[in-house]
Amino acid sequence: MTLLSRENRRQIGLWAASLVSVGLFGASALAENNIVHDAEYYILEAQHGDVWAKEDQTIEARLAEFRERNNGKPPNILYVLVDDLSFGEMGIPEMNYVRGSQTPRINDFADEGLSLMRMYTEPSCTPSRAAMMTGRHPVRNGLGEVKATVAGESLAGKEVTIAEVLSEAGYNTVHIGKWHLGDIEEGYPHNQGFDYASFPIHQQVLLGFMTPESDHSQAMQGWLPGSSNDPYALDATFKPDGLVYSLEARRGELAREVDFEAGERWTQAHYDAMHEKYQRETLAHLQDLTAKDEPFFLQYWPLIPLEFDRTRFETFETANGGTGVESLRQLDTWFGDIVDEVDRLGIADNTLIVLMADNGRFRQFDTILGFSGTMYRGGKVDTTEGALRVNAFARWPGMIAEDTLAGDMIHIADLFTTFARIGGGLNHVPTDRVIDGLDQSALLLEGDGHGRRDYVFVYSTDTLSAVVKQKFKLELPPPGAPGVAAAVYDVYRDPREENPLTPIALWASASYQDIIERHMKTVQKYPHAEVGRDRPYSGIENLRPESEEMVDKFMSWLAETVR
Amino acid sequence: MTLLSRENRRQIGLWAASLVSVGLFGASALAENNIVHDAEYYILEAQHGDVWAKEDQTIEARLAEFRERNNGKPPNILYVLVDDLSFGEMGIPEMNYVRGSQTPRINDFADEGLSLMRMYTEPSCTPSRAAMMTGRHPVRNGLGEVKATVAGESLAGKEVTIAEVLSEAGYNTVHIGKWHLGDIEEGYPHNQGFDYASFPIHQQVLLGFMTPESDHSQAMQGWLPGSSNDPYALDATFKPDGLVYSLEARRGELAREVDFEAGERWTQAHYDAMHEKYQRETLAHLQDLTAKDEPFFLQYWPLIPLEFDRTRFETFETANGGTGVESLRQLDTWFGDIVDEVDRLGIADNTLIVLMADNGRFRQFDTILGFSGTMYRGGKVDTTEGALRVNAFARWPGMIAEDTLAGDMIHIADLFTTFARIGGGLNHVPTDRVIDGLDQSALLLEGDGHGRRDYVFVYSTDTLSAVVKQKFKLELPPPGAPGVAAAVYDVYRDPREENPLTPIALWASASYQDIIERHMKTVQKYPHAEVGRDRPYSGIENLRPESEEMVDKFMSWLAETVR
Repeated sequence: MTLLSRENRRQIGLWAASLVSVGLFGASALAENNIVHDAEYYILEAQHGDVWAKEDQTIEARLAEFRERNNGKPPNILYVLVDDLSFGEMGIPEMNYVRGSQTPRINDFADEGLSLMRMYTEPSCTPSRAAMMTGRHPVRNGLGEVKATVAGESLAGKEVTIAEVLSEAGYNTVHIGKWHLGDIEEGYPHNQGFDYASFPIHQQVLLGFMTPESDHSQAMQGWLPGSSNDPYALDATFKPDGLVYSLEARRGELAREVDFEAGERWTQAHYDAMHEKYQRETLAHLQDLTAKDEPFFLQYWPLIPLEFDRTRFETFETANGGTGVESLRQLDTWFGDIVDEVDRLGIADNTLIVLMADNGRFRQFDTILGFSGTMYRGGKVDTTEGALRVNAFARWPGMIAEDTLAGDMIHIADLFTTFARIGGGLNHVPTDRVIDGLDQSALLLEGDGHGRRDYVFVYSTDTLSAVVKQKFKLELPPPGAPGVAAAVYDVYRDPREENPLTPIALWASASYQDIIERHMKTVQKYPHAEVGRDRPYSGIENLRPESEEMVDKFMSWLAETVR
Repeated sequence: MTLLSRENRRQIGLWAASLVSVGLFGASALAENNIVHDAEYYILEAQHGDVWAKEDQTIEARLAEFRERNNGKPPNILYVLVDDLSFGEMGIPEMNYVRGSQTPRINDFADEGLSLMRMYTEPSCTPSRAAMMTGRHPVRNGLGEVKATVAGESLAGKEVTIAEVLSEAGYNTVHIGKWHLGDIEEGYPHNQGFDYASFPIHQQVLLGFMTPESDHSQAMQGWLPGSSNDPYALDATFKPDGLVYSLEARRGELAREVDFEAGERWTQAHYDAMHEKYQRETLAHLQDLTAKDEPFFLQYWPLIPLEFDRTRFETFETANGGTGVESLRQLDTWFGDIVDEVDRLGIADNTLIVLMADNGRFRQFDTILGFSGTMYRGGKVDTTEGALRVNAFARWPGMIAEDTLAGDMIHIADLFTTFARIGGGLNHVPTDRVIDGLDQSALLLEGDGHGRRDYVFVYSTDTLSAVVKQKFKLELPPPGAPGVAAAVYDVYRDPREENPLTPIALWASASYQDIIERHMKTVQKYPHAEVGRDRPYSGIENLRPESEEMVDKFMSWLAETVR
């Protein structure tokens, strides 16, 4: 018996998909909707569909009762997504002592709601954010890879985001902070369902590393013009010059670059100001959105705690003293201020707040940031639990029990479907494509033991790299290797994935082969969509001359150099 | 500059010790007592002595006020010491979800008192237990090494234990469960200050591994007679036969072996019965001791969660399913029952309960037990934090604030001095030897930030292997290697000690050298004492013939074979 090679997997027939399409696995728990899930879900639905259907009636009744109390409206949704923070770094007081860190406000927030103890993300930023926005593994829409500088790619316009779903359901929608889903017009948040967006077009490599201060503090050397004098460096376009930084935009309008002048050089001061602006804007929009009649979906995706410049801190408040840990303390205060503002505005009871990280820390920055590995091994871009497991918390007073924990598996893509359900937008979820995100409303509202997932597919860019099923995790062997070469780990007994279980692998590789086969048959029935492609920085009304020039060069090599 | 070799260290003069003896470092915080501490303490006392003296007045007033409420008596002390359990395995609800384990009662107990987040132990059982009993690093009394079978050694009679100190102060004293401080009369607990003791003379290697069931479940193969047939094995004494198991004894009397007949073979059933008996006895003594006029010091040192036989569990209740994790669940229930009994007896408010582990898990048993590494690297017998850091909790309603955590450093030896202080026995602490244990009453009673230690000496048997000072930890290089070869870790930033800090080492090895020099000068002034030595199994009134025979053989090779 061999595990399918990647090529084989793509060529498998329609067995599982056909089972799905003829409804062999029992009645859908979402009778009002024809959302297509991955085959694995229907294996579970066949076993639990009846219980779930009953449970869904309870959930629907609770949501209806809530809307009745709330002038017929579903709740506001405030979604705060922290960048690169490993499991254990927030919301667990004991871990603050292990780390010498301070997250008291987030710890308190955790006590006010449900801590999701087994939240899986994708292995890095762009994929995780794409999964949340579309409810789909990013391999399905070409967003499995993180692009740092100009790429001319984005979340495709034909993808349907949670912002679009909730807009359709009557929500006002605002995005503030990191976006990282592409540098072309169709991918910008205000073209993906948000009424308003304020965001940097790129991510922290360009914002936090490519500064003179970063060179001085030895965080990144070799990029800064003038920081070395290499007569053999012939290609002047190798280092990007003319990057676009901060954009603001309203739905239906062109984006506008702000807070940066032509000819200026990006510095740490710009980066600092950017953090503060996003925090300020989040608080301001919270007030504006509260004043309106419609419910809101506000998402705030901060750039900190990725912070590399030690000189920006006058004194260090934590025992750890790393820039990341110190910056996390700032984030903690800021997050606390946002929760306080929700409470002050009197909308606590009708606002679902979800806080989580998008993936584990990038371990390469450990010594700078003050972090390092703890209970899970690895970090961002790995496929170990250290990359994929994050802290996640949900608060909704009166609807989500306070001071509770749940060990159920949940994936960041599940938030798409769950928010759609809670926001009354399930009927706006597209039914012509696979939605990996499952409705986990029961988990949020009924707590531990009410999850609907016992599997996660782990992709590394476009390659299936691991499959989690219950407490076992199989790391796929290289193409062509026999199934017994797969490493299977028990993530309870061995959270750091150090001791592969040979006898379990001998059994489980066969069962995993079935799981993968079903998954690949669904892929064959619903082929992957393409990433959006366009001229970089399209849709920006005030592109600086140096940006135009950089894009021209980019387009020119794209068109002409491959002869 | 070089770090001192071990030889050199032993030969250093009296510089630091003389500083101590002339009182250069300021007035003692314990003016009523002339306890001799290690030199490092006086460095701290010189900086904080005034504050501590004032704080001690507050503590003394609080303790006096307590005694007034409590008919003039100091509190009962119930000390539960769990064997081999790594940091994170109890008292932190979130970690139960990481591990698939269940410690709900201990988690609740943690909420009722103070969690000590930086409790250091010695690296293994005998040294940790010796440190707690005597307040001294076990290198000072020859107990740095764990002996598993017959050794003819023990905690020396001239050592003064906390049980003796508290007996002198008027306490009734009982020891139940694991002892592991020697196999000769002078070392047995009823000869070391306990009015009554019920304990196995050896530890779990002999109790849990050397059984037919352990052979069958592949936990330990090769020992069981008949489990292999090796014609080349000439020495029939190599495998011990005739071991003594469970003893009971009263102060001033001979010990008596119980629950085992001559000619019997030790089995898992005996081991199971032993666990249950110690639990039952603890509850019974709790009742008896409560009925008496004097305060009590009851220590319960369970043998579980070291449990290797899968067949003893009818069903597994945890998601993890390892025998150790399942056994920990049982321990959790049993500990909860004990706390309930304290509450039911109406002595909650006048009983200080301390629960902790003696050192990290022995990583070699990971796959059997269901544990594995988490936030700290390594385990028992290592000198990494994974060996030394354990969870510790203290409850004393009305005196110790509930639901609090403290990040202060504390060492298991500090409990000796702290219990002596709280029990009113400080004047019975000997003053003719170094007491490493510091009075941490202020930490228990005033909480976070009131600790009196920022250093720990880490010995591996009789060799100084590491020194923790504040957040830095220096692993000593091999003898003769230069100081810059020492690895220094920041335990907040790098709790797994994976990234030695070269520039810090270049500075810190010099500062550490001073610390070590001071420490070694104190050793020179107060030389190490000898371990107790005698005929194994002395002081047992009903030694079985096979035990007599085994001891005779042991004594014979000791006397005759080295020619």
